[in-house]
Amino acid sequence: MSSPVDTFIEYAEKNQEAYIDRLRKAVAIPSVSGDPAYRKEVFRMGEFLIDELKALGASVETRDPGVQDFHGTPLPLPPIVLATIGTDPAKKTVLVYGHYDVQPALKEDGWNTDPFELVEDEKHRLIGRGSSDDKGPVLGWINVVEAHKELGLELPVNLKFCLEGMEESGSEGLDDIIFNEADKYFKDVDVVSISDNYWLGTTKPCVTYGLRGVSYFHLTVKGPKADLHSGVFGATIHEPMTDLFAVMSKLVTPKGKILIPGIYDNVLAVSAEEEKTYDDLSFTMQELHDAVGNEINIHDSVKDTLQHRWRFPSLSLHGVEGAFYNPGDKTVIPARVVGKFSIRTVPDMEPKQITELVEKYVNEEFAKLGSKNTMSISCTHAGNHWVASPNHWNYVAASNAVEKVFGVKPDLTREGGSIPVTLSFQDALKKNVLLLPMGRGDDGAHSTNEKLDRSNYVSGIKLLGTYLYEVAEAKPE
Amino acid sequence: MSSPVDTFIEYAEKNQEAYIDRLRKAVAIPSVSGDPAYRKEVFRMGEFLIDELKALGASVETRDPGVQDFHGTPLPLPPIVLATIGTDPAKKTVLVYGHYDVQPALKEDGWNTDPFELVEDEKHRLIGRGSSDDKGPVLGWINVVEAHKELGLELPVNLKFCLEGMEESGSEGLDDIIFNEADKYFKDVDVVSISDNYWLGTTKPCVTYGLRGVSYFHLTVKGPKADLHSGVFGATIHEPMTDLFAVMSKLVTPKGKILIPGIYDNVLAVSAEEEKTYDDLSFTMQELHDAVGNEINIHDSVKDTLQHRWRFPSLSLHGVEGAFYNPGDKTVIPARVVGKFSIRTVPDMEPKQITELVEKYVNEEFAKLGSKNTMSISCTHAGNHWVASPNHWNYVAASNAVEKVFGVKPDLTREGGSIPVTLSFQDALKKNVLLLPMGRGDDGAHSTNEKLDRSNYVSGIKLLGTYLYEVAEAKPE
Repeated sequence: MSSPVDTFIEYAEKNQEAYIDRLRKAVAIPSVSGDPAYRKEVFRMGEFLIDELKALGASVETRDPGVQDFHGTPLPLPPIVLATIGTDPAKKTVLVYGHYDVQPALKEDGWNTDPFELVEDEKHRLIGRGSSDDKGPVLGWINVVEAHKELGLELPVNLKFCLEGMEESGSEGLDDIIFNEADKYFKDVDVVSISDNYWLGTTKPCVTYGLRGVSYFHLTVKGPKADLHSGVFGATIHEPMTDLFAVMSKLVTPKGKILIPGIYDNVLAVSAEEEKTYDDLSFTMQELHDAVGNEINIHDSVKDTLQHRWRFPSLSLHGVEGAFYNPGDKTVIPARVVGKFSIRTVPDMEPKQITELVEKYVNEEFAKLGSKNTMSISCTHAGNHWVASPNHWNYVAASNAVEKVFGVKPDLTREGGSIPVTLSFQDALKKNVLLLPMGRGDDGAHSTNEKLDRSNYVSGIKLLGTYLYEVAEAKPE
Repeated sequence: MSSPVDTFIEYAEKNQEAYIDRLRKAVAIPSVSGDPAYRKEVFRMGEFLIDELKALGASVETRDPGVQDFHGTPLPLPPIVLATIGTDPAKKTVLVYGHYDVQPALKEDGWNTDPFELVEDEKHRLIGRGSSDDKGPVLGWINVVEAHKELGLELPVNLKFCLEGMEESGSEGLDDIIFNEADKYFKDVDVVSISDNYWLGTTKPCVTYGLRGVSYFHLTVKGPKADLHSGVFGATIHEPMTDLFAVMSKLVTPKGKILIPGIYDNVLAVSAEEEKTYDDLSFTMQELHDAVGNEINIHDSVKDTLQHRWRFPSLSLHGVEGAFYNPGDKTVIPARVVGKFSIRTVPDMEPKQITELVEKYVNEEFAKLGSKNTMSISCTHAGNHWVASPNHWNYVAASNAVEKVFGVKPDLTREGGSIPVTLSFQDALKKNVLLLPMGRGDDGAHSTNEKLDRSNYVSGIKLLGTYLYEVAEAKPE
């Protein structure tokens, strides 16, 4: 007689058409959080999940994040859905997070099919907005619960859901609820698992244990009281654009080295153990070239490239507010220009210290110009980096589950971007947070023709279920 | 018995209310050339002038510049109005140019009154769009003709008009007509007089004998095939913005010195004679500060300031196309960015050589970066500088007229900007071109609450008429 986990895996394999039907229903609800016209659809998607969870016997509550100020128009925020399945004190409790809103999508953006109608193509890709980000993974957990209910099997752990409907629009209101519920609804949580990122490449699963932070800066140079004509004033006054370009050109070299003194001082060195994790990664320079569409890599090796993506800081110049930006020619001297740049941060850089170093440096560089204009710098956002120990039993459980379902050890990855909720859960609950993706690196989560491969969906369901068994088996140190 | 010119001056002084009425009628026609919704008003303004000229006995013809392609929509271009008064071979022939279109104006832009209703305030400023630019000056000439008709006086010269309705929108179609008519309609022209600029300050008239040229450049850096996420790609690829800022920061110093080698080589030195013209100019540093709204002057003296405005080159950075320009934060790595900058040029810089020097320099600077992105530079517009001899009899005539009407010698000025038609007339007709302004430096030609002081209008009419007598008297060398 086969073990419960094997029974589950076998059942999941057989029931994939039902899972795809469920995903089809979810994709058909255009729950675009960024467009007020679709706000009621976001609520409808929340109701859909509540109904599914209740039908499976979950105890469901909601929290109201309140009202959004959308450019002056108040818009109700969709509920945070909290669902509980099992409260056995003898079992561990796993909190899963996901989101039920999606990015905007219009056929005319370049979709080959209606973005809100799930279609399977000849390569068995399930194409539709939200298929991979994040409806597939959210339904993945629900499918695991359903399979156990149908099979008459008890879940090996207590499961709690936290599902939000505003992830693609800044997760408004979520943090307050997480911190508020930390010792209430989330009290018994042992570990957190989030399935909202991607495999590094297209062939090998991964578990993800780190994210870079980001500090965003506005560098403002002011001169004249209004825009001026360059014919009349060129070469007679200090021009804000000249000063801005002078200072912003001193921030980073064309090869990506940040020129702000002290900025690298707190960056952790690569340990021997970490170094090894880069040896067998499923990634090639060709994949970088394909993603970028050009061979403009700074580093020649996969290891250097991924270390600079994941665990070294970067600085990017994003744009200028207040200057001429249209096509064509305009001979303006802009009066006030705001240069935008950000620094991706890594352990053990401190947001406060980063801001101090940036302020000191740009002030010094501006002073060197001898300009009569005024310059100011402000940090408009500072989200911290996040890194978990990949040796924690939660990660070991995930890694074992990958091996059982896929027959390979997962890539151990980090990401260059941010997923702020990860840090919120860690800070509020003081529990280990795991990123366990379902989709592939080429799913096009925020792009046209977003897809989730059928095999990723089905294997992902098996993986999430198996992971719960591994968690149940794990022996916390 | 008084001379004809004195009789005219006296008459003009007495008839100012009629002149203001005529200006009121002209301002009431919102002949905005830049907005298709007002195109029919531009035509109506052309008809108004044709009617006025015909009523005074002028022989009027028009030339059709054809059709404008306004972002894909064909729009008829308003006519070039050609009017002749007098064909006496014994007299000199003066060509006057003016334009009958205006800049856009909306009450909500910050006008204190309806921009298309001429009002006179307590300081005797005639406020309304086009009052100073260029309806006041155009009607100035017409008022001169009317005065002579009413007085039964013959004009001392033959007068030809060339009036266009697209000056504020690039003078589309005008150049072809000027060159085409050079040995036809304009065949007998001896000198050209344009009243479409301003006194240097607010108290003293000027004649203007030079304009800077302008060469506009687009510096394009291309890298990825599409915009990228700075979290995922920061520090792993060459970023176009980093390269663009590096190169553009090498173009000009914060004190306005252009860093392109060779760019100053052909700039004429200030002659002793020219140096003297800067001694008595009606201009103070306070006027610069007032115009700019801040004390950000590079040079401390009026002479240095005006020499850098008028007769030395300048380089201004105008903006970036393709980068983030909105308020707020966006962590984008723009894929293709186009930096815009222009060089104001002076005698004897050559547009072709300027482009070559710019190309060579930015290519060298980009090569130094060691970037794998691609950079290209193009000159999108090159309008040449213009300078006339202020000793030409046409200028002497104008200077004499200023002395007669105002009792002072005029400032001898140049301007930092361009008035392309000046160069077109000089090149096509090979005749001396004079800029003889009517309005003051603070008229706010393209701004809100544009005005023409009553005294400038009335004295301007006297000046234009007196100038014709001085031209008639002049003895060409």
